[in-house]
Amino acid sequence: MIRVTVLYPNGKGTTFDMSYYTSKHMPMVKRLCGAACKSIGAERGLNAGQPGTAATYIAAGYLTFDSVEAFEKAFGPHAGEIMADIPNYTNAKPVVQISEITL
Amino acid sequence: MIRVTVLYPNGKGTTFDMSYYTSKHMPMVKRLCGAACKSIGAERGLNAGQPGTAATYIAAGYLTFDSVEAFEKAFGPHAGEIMADIPNYTNAKPVVQISEITL
Repeated sequence: MIRVTVLYPNGKGTTFDMSYYTSKHMPMVKRLCGAACKSIGAERGLNAGQPGTAATYIAAGYLTFDSVEAFEKAFGPHAGEIMADIPNYTNAKPVVQISEITL
Repeated sequence: MIRVTVLYPNGKGTTFDMSYYTSKHMPMVKRLCGAACKSIGAERGLNAGQPGTAATYIAAGYLTFDSVEAFEKAFGPHAGEIMADIPNYTNAKPVVQISEITL
């Protein structure tokens, strides 16, 4: 199983509409990817581990798939439409990471 | 519910013993935090979204708790012991993020 993590770097002037992200964007991604997408998730950054510190990422999103190949096959054809929706909820430039779930 | 994410930055010469991390370190953290720790997880970075790219993070670990307060109360007394175990599996300096799970 692999996890696709999309991290949105925090910064001065960075905006993020979590309501749009969880109610519109992520469900759209799941719908477009179909059954290959096993789960979706999202979170809002609170701090960098200690109270009063700024979170490195203002938000993050997660998707899981059986394999990298399953992700590429399901996501690839819709990448343009999905990317085009990003300005509707943030001005951040996301950092994408694909990982193998080991625990 | 909150997620504590520990991200291990990738780089030239960075090492990470995933076997130790998933079989020794993360179970130790869960044991020390007790029932307050609702789940643990880990992953190995594969790439930055496109085949052939380097993952930003060589590995990541996850813990979930009911609240930031529950995390601080459970983790705080054992922070020293937990941090002292890091050199046993990596030479990376972890980036910690605490987030509110929103989806």
